[in-house]
Amino acid sequence: MAKEKEEEEEKAAVECFVVVHNIAKRHNVGTMARSATAFGVSELILVGRRDFNAFGSHGSTSHLRFRHFHSLNDARLYLKEKDCDICGVEIADGASPVNQHPFRKSTAFLLGNEGTGLSAKECEICDFFVYIPQYGCGTASLNVTVAASIVLHHFGVWAGFPERTRDGNKFVVAERPVKQGRRNYCAEEAESVMEERRIRRENAHGFLDESGTDGSPSNMLDTLFGGS
Amino acid sequence: MAKEKEEEEEKAAVECFVVVHNIAKRHNVGTMARSATAFGVSELILVGRRDFNAFGSHGSTSHLRFRHFHSLNDARLYLKEKDCDICGVEIADGASPVNQHPFRKSTAFLLGNEGTGLSAKECEICDFFVYIPQYGCGTASLNVTVAASIVLHHFGVWAGFPERTRDGNKFVVAERPVKQGRRNYCAEEAESVMEERRIRRENAHGFLDESGTDGSPSNMLDTLFGGS
Repeated sequence: MAKEKEEEEEKAAVECFVVVHNIAKRHNVGTMARSATAFGVSELILVGRRDFNAFGSHGSTSHLRFRHFHSLNDARLYLKEKDCDICGVEIADGASPVNQHPFRKSTAFLLGNEGTGLSAKECEICDFFVYIPQYGCGTASLNVTVAASIVLHHFGVWAGFPERTRDGNKFVVAERPVKQGRRNYCAEEAESVMEERRIRRENAHGFLDESGTDGSPSNMLDTLFGGS
Repeated sequence: MAKEKEEEEEKAAVECFVVVHNIAKRHNVGTMARSATAFGVSELILVGRRDFNAFGSHGSTSHLRFRHFHSLNDARLYLKEKDCDICGVEIADGASPVNQHPFRKSTAFLLGNEGTGLSAKECEICDFFVYIPQYGCGTASLNVTVAASIVLHHFGVWAGFPERTRDGNKFVVAERPVKQGRRNYCAEEAESVMEERRIRRENAHGFLDESGTDGSPSNMLDTLFGGS
């Protein structure tokens, strides 16, 4: 019993990250952002290419923290400082079916380019791999957002994230946060990250709600990457 | 033990269907088809609107059986003749989280229009409902293909569908079936359906492989709905 309680407490601090390296189709980031916020992802980390659009995000990009690194190694250092496992989503040797939940702690999921999957260099920074079993003969792989969504769904189930409040047949969407400066959302400073985490924990049912003063719509993607 | 064996035998005959009613965004059907074939879906059933394109399918529409009905009731009768449960993918009263696997036998998953979810009329034909738990505050619902994919993935895990052969980090895609006549793929006749099922069972690792004689590429969507 004591062990179970300990495990539960450990899980309470668990976070989920998504790392996207040189995604080829810019509109995939929008749908990915929608799934990421649905499944309680703390940050969507873009490595390399960062010119994308929010098509398919349905406004959800306003509620998600984005971060950008120029190199995979920088992303790795950032995640390792957070004591995160890095999990490649790839049918690699020794990869586990994702439904077996081979997770231990906070995890960042690394997704490859849509066409070719994870490169050798990408695989190198991974601590382990998960894949999604397929049963039919008609496709070699899944759409990258679909694959990411299935993995994030399983991680949320494993981590026991608290379920979002519902209203009828929809989950309740928070007010959009007000427009904030670029550095608020790309800041590397540990203080600002910890501060936002603290606020999120205090307000588990409304991440980023806390910042609203005038309620005007905004879009972090525009703020972060506008014009690039 | 005897009961377990019985259950296993029952599961061996289990099939999975997807029913899409008046989908609003035509390109969603293409990505849906890709996931459907990945997760061993027997047929993608379109009700009402059937003018869609195969964008996002990556050729997988060639490996999937499509069927069209004008009314929901016709679709229901067809599925009930197969002794299928009809499961609505919707956050309805009494809906179970999909990861609890509330399945009993062959199941058709009914997906609503992207904007509004399942209508009252659609809910009426459902035997039960599943939903996908969400944890974040940034979106009221998931992309329809993402939601379908998560549900189909879980059904495949529950049913114990045999995993598709892999080659390196990709699942092996079968040869494309040769072009076939419209009525081969939309036939309502029980004989043709049973014949194809028989062939599929004999050839579990290559649904629709059996038809290849000249190997020329084809697309069932074009065959079925070409020009419409």
